[in-house]
Formats: sequence, C-alpha cells, structure tokens
Amino acid sequence: MHNKILVLHGPNLNLLGKREPEIYGKTTLEDINEGLRSRAEKSGVAIECIQANCEGKLVTLIQEAQGKYDYIILNAAAYTHTSVAIRDAIAAVNVPTIEVHLSNIHKREEFRHKSLIAPVVVGQIAGFGADSYMLALSFALTKITGE
Amino acid sequence: MHNKILVLHGPNLNLLGKREPEIYGKTTLEDINEGLRSRAEKSGVAIECIQANCEGKLVTLIQEAQGKYDYIILNAAAYTHTSVAIRDAIAAVNVPTIEVHLSNIHKREEFRHKSLIAPVVVGQIAGFGADSYMLALSFALTKITGE
Amino acid sequence: MHNKILVLHGPNLNLLGKREPEIYGKTTLEDINEGLRSRAEKSGVAIECIQANCEGKLVTLIQEAQGKYDYIILNAAAYTHTSVAIRDAIAAVNVPTIEVHLSNIHKREEFRHKSLIAPVVVGQIAGFGADSYMLALSFALTKITGE
Amino acid sequence: MHNKILVLHGPNLNLLGKREPEIYGKTTLEDINEGLRSRAEKSGVAIECIQANCEGKLVTLIQEAQGKYDYIILNAAAYTHTSVAIRDAIAAVNVPTIEVHLSNIHKREEFRHKSLIAPVVVGQIAGFGADSYMLALSFALTKITGE
Amino acid sequence: MHNKILVLHGPNLNLLGKREPEIYGKTTLEDINEGLRSRAEKSGVAIECIQANCEGKLVTLIQEAQGKYDYIILNAAAYTHTSVAIRDAIAAVNVPTIEVHLSNIHKREEFRHKSLIAPVVVGQIAGFGADSYMLALSFALTKITGE
Amino acid sequence: MHNKILVLHGPNLNLLGKREPEIYGKTTLEDINEGLRSRAEKSGVAIECIQANCEGKLVTLIQEAQGKYDYIILNAAAYTHTSVAIRDAIAAVNVPTIEVHLSNIHKREEFRHKSLIAPVVVGQIAGFGADSYMLALSFALTKITGE
Amino acid sequence: MHNKILVLHGPNLNLLGKREPEIYGKTTLEDINEGLRSRAEKSGVAIECIQANCEGKLVTLIQEAQGKYDYIILNAAAYTHTSVAIRDAIAAVNVPTIEVHLSNIHKREEFRHKSLIAPVVVGQIAGFGADSYMLALSFALTKITGE
Amino acid sequence: MHNKILVLHGPNLNLLGKREPEIYGKTTLEDINEGLRSRAEKSGVAIECIQANCEGKLVTLIQEAQGKYDYIILNAAAYTHTSVAIRDAIAAVNVPTIEVHLSNIHKREEFRHKSLIAPVVVGQIAGFGADSYMLALSFALTKITGE
Amino acid sequence: MHNKILVLHGPNLNLLGKREPEIYGKTTLEDINEGLRSRAEKSGVAIECIQANCEGKLVTLIQEAQGKYDYIILNAAAYTHTSVAIRDAIAAVNVPTIEVHLSNIHKREEFRHKSLIAPVVVGQIAGFGADSYMLALSFALTKITGE
Amino acid sequence: MHNKILVLHGPNLNLLGKREPEIYGKTTLEDINEGLRSRAEKSGVAIECIQANCEGKLVTLIQEAQGKYDYIILNAAAYTHTSVAIRDAIAAVNVPTIEVHLSNIHKREEFRHKSLIAPVVVGQIAGFGADSYMLALSFALTKITGE
Amino acid sequence: MHNKILVLHGPNLNLLGKREPEIYGKTTLEDINEGLRSRAEKSGVAIECIQANCEGKLVTLIQEAQGKYDYIILNAAAYTHTSVAIRDAIAAVNVPTIEVHLSNIHKREEFRHKSLIAPVVVGQIAGFGADSYMLALSFALTKITGE
Amino acid sequence: MHNKILVLHGPNLNLLGKREPEIYGKTTLEDINEGLRSRAEKSGVAIECIQANCEGKLVTLIQEAQGKYDYIILNAAAYTHTSVAIRDAIAAVNVPTIEVHLSNIHKREEFRHKSLIAPVVVGQIAGFGADSYMLALSFALTKITGE
Repeated sequence: MHNKILVLHGPNLNLLGKREPEIYGKTTLEDINEGLRSRAEKSGVAIECIQANCEGKLVTLIQEAQGKYDYIILNAAAYTHTSVAIRDAIAAVNVPTIEVHLSNIHKREEFRHKSLIAPVVVGQIAGFGADSYMLALSFALTKITGE
Repeated sequence: MHNKILVLHGPNLNLLGKREPEIYGKTTLEDINEGLRSRAEKSGVAIECIQANCEGKLVTLIQEAQGKYDYIILNAAAYTHTSVAIRDAIAAVNVPTIEVHLSNIHKREEFRHKSLIAPVVVGQIAGFGADSYMLALSFALTKITGE
Repeated sequence: MHNKILVLHGPNLNLLGKREPEIYGKTTLEDINEGLRSRAEKSGVAIECIQANCEGKLVTLIQEAQGKYDYIILNAAAYTHTSVAIRDAIAAVNVPTIEVHLSNIHKREEFRHKSLIAPVVVGQIAGFGADSYMLALSFALTKITGE
Repeated sequence: MHNKILVLHGPNLNLLGKREPEIYGKTTLEDINEGLRSRAEKSGVAIECIQANCEGKLVTLIQEAQGKYDYIILNAAAYTHTSVAIRDAIAAVNVPTIEVHLSNIHKREEFRHKSLIAPVVVGQIAGFGADSYMLALSFALTKITGE
Repeated sequence: MHNKILVLHGPNLNLLGKREPEIYGKTTLEDINEGLRSRAEKSGVAIECIQANCEGKLVTLIQEAQGKYDYIILNAAAYTHTSVAIRDAIAAVNVPTIEVHLSNIHKREEFRHKSLIAPVVVGQIAGFGADSYMLALSFALTKITGE
Repeated sequence: MHNKILVLHGPNLNLLGKREPEIYGKTTLEDINEGLRSRAEKSGVAIECIQANCEGKLVTLIQEAQGKYDYIILNAAAYTHTSVAIRDAIAAVNVPTIEVHLSNIHKREEFRHKSLIAPVVVGQIAGFGADSYMLALSFALTKITGE
Repeated sequence: MHNKILVLHGPNLNLLGKREPEIYGKTTLEDINEGLRSRAEKSGVAIECIQANCEGKLVTLIQEAQGKYDYIILNAAAYTHTSVAIRDAIAAVNVPTIEVHLSNIHKREEFRHKSLIAPVVVGQIAGFGADSYMLALSFALTKITGE
Repeated sequence: MHNKILVLHGPNLNLLGKREPEIYGKTTLEDINEGLRSRAEKSGVAIECIQANCEGKLVTLIQEAQGKYDYIILNAAAYTHTSVAIRDAIAAVNVPTIEVHLSNIHKREEFRHKSLIAPVVVGQIAGFGADSYMLALSFALTKITGE
Repeated sequence: MHNKILVLHGPNLNLLGKREPEIYGKTTLEDINEGLRSRAEKSGVAIECIQANCEGKLVTLIQEAQGKYDYIILNAAAYTHTSVAIRDAIAAVNVPTIEVHLSNIHKREEFRHKSLIAPVVVGQIAGFGADSYMLALSFALTKITGE
Repeated sequence: MHNKILVLHGPNLNLLGKREPEIYGKTTLEDINEGLRSRAEKSGVAIECIQANCEGKLVTLIQEAQGKYDYIILNAAAYTHTSVAIRDAIAAVNVPTIEVHLSNIHKREEFRHKSLIAPVVVGQIAGFGADSYMLALSFALTKITGE
Repeated sequence: MHNKILVLHGPNLNLLGKREPEIYGKTTLEDINEGLRSRAEKSGVAIECIQANCEGKLVTLIQEAQGKYDYIILNAAAYTHTSVAIRDAIAAVNVPTIEVHLSNIHKREEFRHKSLIAPVVVGQIAGFGADSYMLALSFALTKITGE
Repeated sequence: MHNKILVLHGPNLNLLGKREPEIYGKTTLEDINEGLRSRAEKSGVAIECIQANCEGKLVTLIQEAQGKYDYIILNAAAYTHTSVAIRDAIAAVNVPTIEVHLSNIHKREEFRHKSLIAPVVVGQIAGFGADSYMLALSFALTKITGE
C-alpha cells in the first residue's frame, strides 16, 4: 500500500464551472480537487490531481502510476469514447482504476453511450456531478484503509 | 422529505451469494440489505428492501413509491437490458432513482452493455459488488439529510 | 356476435392524467374508460376495461377473450416494443384486435417506432390522445352492429 | 376556422378498387371521396379530395393548404416511405395533418414499415381500409366543430 | 440423483392443439404431458409439468428446481427471444436444461431465429412437434438412469 | 393480345450518347428507339417509346399501359433505386414488365446495386449497352408472337 | 464563358421567410434572389433564379443548363437526401455545381446528414443562412471573372 | 418406404475423437456410425454413413438420396454456415432431412450461430454430442416404422 | 476468334425439370443445352455445356476456358452468392462472361439478392427461365459473328 | 468585439503544397495564411494562424480562444472524423467556429464523410481548395465589421 | 521435428504471373516454389508445395499434414474470406500455420478485409508479393532449426 | 538511398516485457531495438528506434522521415485502430511503411481487427512477437541493399 490516489481529469475538464453549467454545474475543477483532498486527508491518504488535454499525456500518466498509487480515479471525458490507447494503458499497469463521469452519459448523444475503457476498469460511476468523484474516492479509501 | 429510501432488487438477485460467486461474490442479498439498513439508520433514514422476479411487480412497486420515498435504489438485473416498462415507470413517478449493478456490466456479454433505464435515472454505479448499493445509498443520504 | 368489447391498458397507463401531462394530457384512465363505456352503451354493446402492469397477465387476458368478445382494443404501452408473448397471444386467438397509442410513437425515442404487435392486429391508431381509443371503438362498433 | 378539410391521395390510389383487391378491397377512390363528402356535409364542413401521382404536386398542394384548410388527411402511399419533401412541406405549413393508410403497412414488406412523414403529423391510422379515412375525418370534424 | 424431471411450458402453450394447428399440430398440452409422464414412468423417473404465461413465474420455477430436479426440459416459447431473466436463472442454478421448440423456429419470422437462452442450455431440439419434448426426455432419461 | 409494346426511359436517358460515353456508349436514345422500332416491325408488333424525367409521369404512363400494351420494357434509371411509387404502379397493372439497364449496375456505386423494382418485374437485363433493350424486346416478341 | 449563373432552389424553399424562421430566418426567397442578382450585376455576370417543388423539373433544368451557364448554385433541399436523379443530372452535364444549404444540416435529423449529390459537386457550403448562397456566388464569380 | 436412412458427415468430422476432445468428446466417427447402425438394425432399417470434406460431394450425395432413402441425417459441420448449395440440394430433393450438431453451436463463435440449412430441414438437434445423431435416428425410425 | 462458347451450369442445375417446377419450370438441363446447341449451330458457332456441383471444378473450368472460348455463359446457381473463388477466376481469365439466372433472384430470399460475381461479368440476365440462357447466347453470337 | 480571428490548421496540413497535389493543389500553408492575413488587414481585423499535429494542442488552443477572438476558422483535417475532444472544446467556448476543408470530403473514403465537429460549428465549407478558407474568412469579416 | 514444411496455394494461384500482373507481379507460382525450396534446402529442411482450386481438397491436405509437417504456410486466396471448413481444419490439427497473401488485402475490396482463418493461425503476412511466402518461410525455419 | 530505417513504436509499447507477458512475451522494447540494430548493422544500414505515446508526436515523426529514411517500420499499437491522422501522414510522405504487430490482432477484441492504416502501407505482419519486427526489417533490408 502506498496510501496514495491519482485523480486524472481528461480534455476540457479545466473549463469546469465556467462553461455549460446546465450539464456540469457551477463547481470548478479546483473545487472538486479541493473536496477530494480534504476528504482523503481525513483518512490519511494522499491524493494527486492532474488535468490534461492530450491523450498521449494521459497514457504516460497512467503508466507512471504503477508502483506509486493504490488507485486511479479517471474521468477520461471525450477520450472515454475514442481512446484505445488509454484503455491499453489501464490494462497494462496494475493499479485498479475507477471510471467517473459528471453527467449521466447515457442521457446524452448516442456516441457518448459507449465507453471504450469501461471493460478494463473496476467500475463506473456516472451522473452524480462532483459527487461522482467523491463516491469513487469513498470506495477507494475503504479498500485502502480497510475501514 | 419522507426520510425514506426504497431499494429494489430485480430477478435472480435472491440467489445472491449462493450462485456464481466468481461474478457476484459470497455476500447474500440479506447481508446487503442488512448493511444498507444499518448505514441508513445512522442517518435517521428508513429503508425498505424488496426483491422481485416479475417485471410487472417491479413496475407496480416503482409506481407506488411516489409520494412515499425520497429515493429509489434500483438493481433491475436482467430487466435492465429488456424492460421499457420499468423505464416508463421511473420516468412517470418523480422519485429520483439510482441505477446500481454488482458487476461491471461492460465486461460481460455484449447485450449487457446497453441499459434501457440509464437515460431516465439520476446516475449509474456499476462494478463495485455490494459497495455499489452502499455508494448509491451514501449519495442519497447526503441529498436527503443535506449533510 | 357477443356484442362485447374488451379494452386492455398496458403498464403504467394507470398513472394517466397524473404524470407527464405534456405527453399524454390530463385525462385519467377512468375518464377514458367512462367515455368508452358511455359511447358503447349507445350502440347496445357492452365493454370491459382492464389495466395490467404484468406482461403475463395481459397474455392471459387476451387468451381468455376468445369466445367472449368481438373485438379487443389494446394499448400495450411499453410492451408494444418488447413483447413477443403478447403478439403470439393475439395471433393465437381469433378475436380481431385494434392497436392504439395515446401519443404519436413515431415522434418519440427510436425504440418506440417499432411495434412487435402491429403485424398481427387489424390496424393501428396512434397520436390522438384519448381519441385514439374512441376511434378504435367507433370502428369496432360499426363492424359489430353493422351500422 | 375555415370549416374546410383537404384530403390528399398519393400515387397509384386512383387505381383503387380496380387492382389488387386482396390488399385494398373493392371500393374505388371515388366511393371513398363520396363517403367522406357526405359525412362532412352532415357536420357542415366542406371537403376537397385530390389525387396525384407526382411528389412535387403533393408538396405544392400541401403548401397551398395553408390559410385555407383546417385539416389535411393524407394518404401519401408510396411516398410515405421515400419523400423528405412531403415531410418538409407538412412541417412548414401549420395545417394539422393526419396520416392514413388503407392497409396495415406493418404486415407488408419491410421497407413499408418506416414512415418518413409520421414524425410531423398529428397521428397515424392504418389498416382499416376505407374506414381509415373515415376515422381520420371523424377526428378532424370533432376538432373543427368542437362536438 | 433425484430421479425427477421438470418440464416447463412458456406463454401461450396452454392453447396448444386449439389454435394455429397448421404450425403446432392438433395435440394438446395435456396430451404432451401425458405422453411424457407415461414414458418417464417406464424408466422409474418422476416428471412434473407446469405451464406459465408470466416471465417472472418461469424465473422462480427455474430457481426452485435447484436441488429437486435432475433436468429441466424448457419450451420458453415467446420468451426464448426476449428474456434475459430466464437465461440468468438457468445460468444461476445447476440443473442441466434442454431447450425444445415444437416448430422449426428457423423457418419462421427473423426475430424467432435468435434464442437468448441457447448459450446457457445443454442443447436445443426444434421442429419435431410434440416429439421435440420426447427426444429431450429420452436424452435426460438416458443420463439419469445411465442406460 | 394488343400486339403492342411500351418502352419507358427514365430520367437523364435523353442525354444518352451526349454525356459520359465511357459508361453508356455513343448511341443516342433516338438510335435505340429506331433500332427497337425496326426490329418490332419485322414481327408485326407496334412499339411506343417515351422518355420522362419525372417520377410521377412514369407512374402515370405505367398505369395507362393497362389494357393497351402486352409488355413494358422499362429502364427506370435513377428511379430504379429510389422509387416505391413506380414499383407499386408495376405491381398494380397486369402488364408484364422487363427491367433493363445499359450499364452493369453492380460495377458502379453501392447504392446502385439495389433495385426497388426488381421484385415486381418478370426479369432483369443489365450491362449490354443498347443491346439490353434489344434482348428484352426479343423476349417480349417471342412471347407475343409465340415464335 | 457565358457570364451566366443558374441558381436552383428545391422544394419548399418558396416558403422561406414565412415558415419555421427559427431554422431558416426571416429572409424570403425573393430577398435572397435580389441580393444575388445585385451582387452578380456588379461583376457583370447575369443570374437566373428558379424554384421548383418537382424532382423531375429540377433534373430538366440542370440538363438544360449545359452550354448556357458557367455555374449552377443548387439548394436541392429535401431532394439532397433522396434524389439519385438530380445527382445523375449534375454528373451528366459539365456545368460545375455548388451545393448550398441555409441551415447546418449536420445539426438536424440523422437522415439529413447524408447528401446524395455531394460526391458530384465542386463543393458544399452549409449553415450560413442566406450567406451560404452569397459565398457560393462569390466563389463562382471569382472563377468566371478571373478576379 | 425404402427402409433406409442416409447419414452424412461434413468436413473435418473424420477427425472426431482425435482432435479438440474438449469440444467434441473422445468418440470417433466410426464409433458413432457403429452405434447408429446397431440401433437401426434393431428396427429393421438399413443405414449408410458417409463423410466428405468437399461441399460439391455433399451436394451430389444429397441429390442421389432421392428415391433411395427415407431420411437424411446431416451434420454439415462448417458448411452449415456457408453453403447455399447444400441448402438448395436439400430443398430440391424430397427426402426429409434432420440437421444435427455435436456441440451447442450457440455457445461458440458468433458466425456459428446462423445455419443456412435450418430453414429447409425438418428440425435441428444440437449440443448432445454423439447423442445428437442418436436422437435424430430415433425420430426417423419412429416415422419410418410407425412405432 | 475461336467461334466457340462455353456454357457452365452450377450446383443442383442437373435436377432441372425434375424438382421445384414452380420456380424453374419443367424444362430439363438437357433440353436447354439442346436448344442452345441448335441455335449456335445456325450461326456456325460451337458450344460446350458442362454442369458441376463442385466450386473448385467450376474454377478450373473457367481457368481452362482461356484461349479456347470467346464467351462464357455462366449460371453459378448457389455459388453466385458465396464464391469469391469463381469471381476471382472470371477476373483472372480474359474470356468475357455473361451471368444468367433462370428465376428472378430478386424475388427470392434476401441472401440471393447479392451476386458476388456480378461486378466482374459483362452483364446479368435473370428471370426469363430457359430464355435467360438463350438471350445470353443471342448476345454472344452477335458479338462473335458480328451480325 | 476583439477584431481578431483565429485560424487553426490540423494534422499534416503543414505538408500542404508539398504532398498529394492532385488532392490539395500546390498552394502551401504559408501561401494560404498570407492570403488570409492580407484580406483581413483590408477590413482592419487581425488574424492569427497556427498549425498543430497534436489533438490535445488543438483542444487547448480552442479553449484559449475564449475572450480573445471573434471567430475560429478550423480545418481539423484527420481529427474531423475522430475527435470528440475537439468537438467538446468548440461546444464549451463561445467563439463561433467555421469548419473548412480544402477537398470535397464527400468524394473521398467513406470514413471521411462523417464530421464529428459539424454539429457544433456555425457552418461547413468544403471542396474549394484554399478558397474554402477565404470564403469562411469573408463570412466572419462581414459579421465582425457589420459590412 | 519432421524437418518438413507444407506450402499450400489456394484457388487461382496457379494463374500467377500470367494474369493481373498489376496486382500480383510477373513471378509464376513455380518461381515462388523454386525460391522457397532452394531457401529451405540451405537449412536442411524439406518443403512440399501444392496448389488446389477445391476447398475440400485443401481441407484434406491440411488434415493430412498432421504428424508429417512442422509448419504449414497457407495462402488460402479467395477461401480466406469464405471458408469455415479450412478454419476448422487448421484448428483441428496441431501443425502451426502461417497465413500469407501476395497483395495487401486491406487495399482491395471490402470483402477481402476480413480473414476467417486469421484467428486460428500463428500470424499473418500480407502485401510483400512473393516475399510474403519467403518471410513466412524464414520464420518457420528459425523455429524448426532453432537458429 | 539513405541506407537508413526508422522504427516507430506507438503507445504503451515502452511497457513491453513488463506487463501482460502472456500476450506480448518477456522481451523488452530495448531488447527488440537491440536485435534490430545488430541485424541492420550487418547489412550496413543504420536504424533509429523511437517510442511515443502521443498521436501528434507520431504524425510529426512520420512527416520528418521524408527524405531521410528509406523505410518506416511502424507498430502503431492502439492508434492502429483509431488514427486517421497517422494514416494521412503515411499517405502524405513517400517513405514506404511496413505495419507490424506483436500479437495476432485478429485473435483479440473485435475492435482490434480493423486497421485504419493498413490501406496505406506496403504490407502487414502480425502475430510473430518480436519476430514481426525482424521479418519487416528483413524485407526492408532486401529492398535497400538489393540482396
């Protein structure tokens, strides 16, 4: 156990709270990160949060998580539906990964219903806004701290 | 606020813990219900848990939740992929519903990747075993108790 | 001739007039039944109206119509799109059946465009609200009373 | 209110009663028109009936209905399945339109199951032979005369 | 070994011998059951025959077969093509199940060519009328009595 | 027997011999008509040749062939792939129709591989240039004159 | 060079500015034609504008453009998605054709995303309202006048 | 009645019992033939068993069965899924044919789920190992000997 | 010029006139061959007619036609829809090939609508019974003798 | 108004004028940029032109355009058909975006016919070579300068 | 180890170097065989080369390779895309098989992109002309001689 | 001739030998590079090996290969199935490219069966582990050195 969790935010999530609030709410990405950090701290687990617009960058970050983190919480955003490379990265490292989505992707356009990464993650949480991250964190903390 | 949550388990979930443990684990349905009840109690929220093999029965239970419950936590099991009737029931009542699945349905047969009810629920949690229910409950309690 | 018509309402139609009025209007199921009864009475034809949420129940009701009713007016609701069993029941008995829908199903979600029962009914009437039933009744009465 | 209804018959309907009676019955198009006129007259509503084989002609007739008719009763026949132009014409004018078919199109070839115009009409009536028109008329009259 | 076989008949099979004889023949369901009982008796094996129109009922019957029967002979009729719930029930209990159909389903409508339960049964026998059941029974008896 | 054949040329065939000679050759439509007339004359059979760009016009011409012609030789050109109305006209009249194409439509774009009218004609001849018409005529003459 | 441009407007475009302004704006077809004429005049190029609801009429107009016009600007409207005949006409004459659409057809219904004529035109301009025509004209004028 | 049955084994079945025993079991083709012969003998019916790897050979064998055999028991193996020629041969001769498969083809690769010959046979038996043949024989003998 | 034509008949055509006369007529294959030979003789052209059930045999016959025949008239029957090997053989030799079918394949099962060999032949003639061959011969003779 | 336009060129466009001139012409990317700058200058509007091979880079550039530019002119090249991330970026910022393509993408491979970004842009201009950019610029300038 | 390799050439490959040189080059099949033999000889490994047009023949040759050869190098040509029987033969024997193609099948017609045998071979080499065989041989020799 | 080869490894290949050895073996990427360098050296050809997780990076590397390398050996890994940009880059430069895959991609998930880059490469080698690279190198060396 490394007592450490990696939170990865995919493309355009840096705009959170600034654009399309009717879909994603007003919370900014920093608000989310802050909430996650404060909750993890209580359980004595460190957390690192990174946002990237580049698919290759996300692949590299997932690869480097190996041996350093106990869990990855991943919101791959647009790449959820198109990236075989991120899927392969998750399958290749053995850090259990939880897929989260702010919105209920099944209510949106047809092409967002299919997740290429879903078959290689532990589980998927979608539709609870910022709470999607929090629920994922809650699950990861339980597994790490055994409480 | 009614301070009450309805947990609905679909077809074959009564066999939980007795069959196919490699997919669903050894926990029985009663174990899950017990865990949920005990957790809800702490927040002062009542919880009712019902299992049904019949699609029409589930439709009726959802209809009757109107005006009595604050949230429905629903594992529709096999009906997730075939029931327009359950979807219509959820859409017709205004009790927010959370869809849960024990297993990661995206790792299983192709026909289990599509959920007919996903577009009408608040959100979907899948792949965390019995914790899928617990995470859903956790979200509902936060909303109900405002904590 | 039995001078008798059976009206079958499928799942969730008991909620009529109470939910989603923008799609189905404010008329309740009882209002519809009342209207149908009063209209049939004028022609000296008895009418029985039953609502059921259970697919198997509807199958049984259709089977039992044989030899008792001259016409079935059926709004199978959600089962329209998923039930081969109801289709088989209609095909098996020789009571002519008229398919009705309150809303214009072709304006709604893709999966509601296809009716599994349409190929075994006399005809289909969709989109006229409660009048869909009334038009079906009007046709049936003409055939029964020969007027 | 103009107290006027336009009945449009699409391609090949002029052959009605002369060809393929096993599908369409022996009634001629003139018989149908006669029946409709006589029924409308009773309610004090005028009716005009036009048949055309040309798609463009039908488009023009629908356009010109604007401001002159209260309802269009349209049997687009073969164009039901291929004409986006007729669909666009119906959507562009604001004369409510009722789609009718003599035969139950869902019992015939696969390509006749899909109606391109269904999503822009009030409702669809199919399978009742000449009565399909009569039921549509009956609905329109009720709306126009308010009886 | 329980020396006991369960025969389950799905929706509409109670009409057997009364409707559509050109597809299913004139034999009634009771005739079939009688034949099966008399044949099983000769081998000293008990047999129970149940018909149900309700999907949920069939699910429950399959679940309860566990630990009581050596074989299930199942004609799921219409549910063959639509029920994931019955499939899951068969997969969950460990009573070997044989799928039978009176008619050759591959000669009928396209949607009857696909069986959702076929991948979880021992084998499939279709097209031999009442003999489909008898051949299934014959196989089961051989396995049970070892002859 | 009317000893009369109708040759119908669809849209753009009036351009024959003037455009895209690499696909259709240099022969003009008048050349083809001339050849057909001269050949039919020898067998004492009259022939009428009409070209039309309008789908509705072709529908009307086919309808009017009834009772006047023994055979229709039809090159529906682009409408081959899109016109249900022409298909219905052919099916409605009982004048046997032969479908011809100058080019081998199966060597061209995907959407030209499917003929909507093929299922209602006697047979199809495609790929022999102007000879496609001549072969069709030859067959029709044999049937008409019995030689 | 003929210093002449043909502008063809397809079905229902005569209703422009009168119907569905939320999609097409308030500009009438005559407004558009006026704007185009005035702009072309400045470059000393004549322009002719014709609207037609009939597919066959459009085919004939395109055929007759040969040898008379330098460019065709075509808004085929509904026929964009269904007419092989118009496609064939464009391919057969050698007058370069520019496809225009008032609305962004990719934001509308699925069946409007595919243009049958796009593969045979110079280029496509869609989504700029009346400016779509103006941009097309601007391109054609540059090519004709060499400025 | 010829009191004679033809058993045809398709490609690769000669390897039976030697390869992939986890799918097909250890029984050799000769074992199966022996069992069938001995069983048929008891009923006084002759049986001939032939294996062939060549599609054309199987076609010829089926053609020659006409007028010589009462039944064909056919395991077309790989050709089940690809041969229209074998299908046509079965349809052309009037020797009733029973389709058998050792394995449950619905549990294997997707392309093995579809049988091209199923629509022209009496019935299909799949998944019972060598017993699939025996059940087919048992049915044929009953029909031939009338017992 | 070799003044020689090869006629190839595919699988099951040897049964012609003996089976399924409602589809193929009563004429036997020998009748057809006789007619073709007698017609070719008149033009001083030799003709060879071969029937084969085996795909590989047909491939070899087509290959060996190179340098010996001026035309191949091919009725590939069932292999029309499944054989890439025959298609490749036709494409590889430079003997022009005419595809013929007795029946109108577009009126039959869906899988018979697609011809794999059509894109590599000169043209296709289907639906004229034995006359399909005769029309093909007539075309080939014209080309060979230049008359 | 910022009086500023951003022109974004996607992957491989830096090779313009150097490779595949038969598709894209001989003009280099710098030539295009020069032409755009000189044209914009005349209207007193600044323009910035950037090329990037990396999808993530383009996403970031689009995000940063917010609040700085009045219009984006985007040729996403290959990413047009695969990038949900670029689509989301355009949807998230409120800078109106015009999609341009040098070639007529509808004349090329099937997979280039579908644009993932088309539904979120103002409009699309394709097939006019470097003029595609110029027409887009012309539209943007009109909107910005109001001329 | 048998120190022996079997090279199988499928249908039409005997024409190699004689037909369609723009796709397959001028090398004849004998040239290829000669090259393979000479290369194998150097490594002290025997090689046998057989060409067959018949699918069943290829199935038999693969079956008989068992216990005699160390490797099969297979160019199934047209059967690559249609033969389940060859696939089953490869899967049934345990002689490792390498799939080769002269041309890059992914550049050709759509139906050549899918190989039915690819999932059961060691690997696939396509597009290198005669070198495809040589590369396959080179791999096999390395494995056999351990060099 | 530059006597230089570029080897490009796509996303996640840097993990080779460290993860999922059951699919890719234990050889590391450095081992492969070493083997390739040593083999190329013997032929006097230089080799450069680069791995990149970023799609845009690979596009740039391919572009820059122009005029510097004789051959590219490319394992695009996950991008094989999703990148039009890499495909366009290969098509744009004129450095012949060989596609390699360690595993037999046709044995893996459905979405890995389709290669977007296959139509623009010389040929494809898949399934031979590290030898896939070696076989590609061997082909390139032969072409470069002419041996």
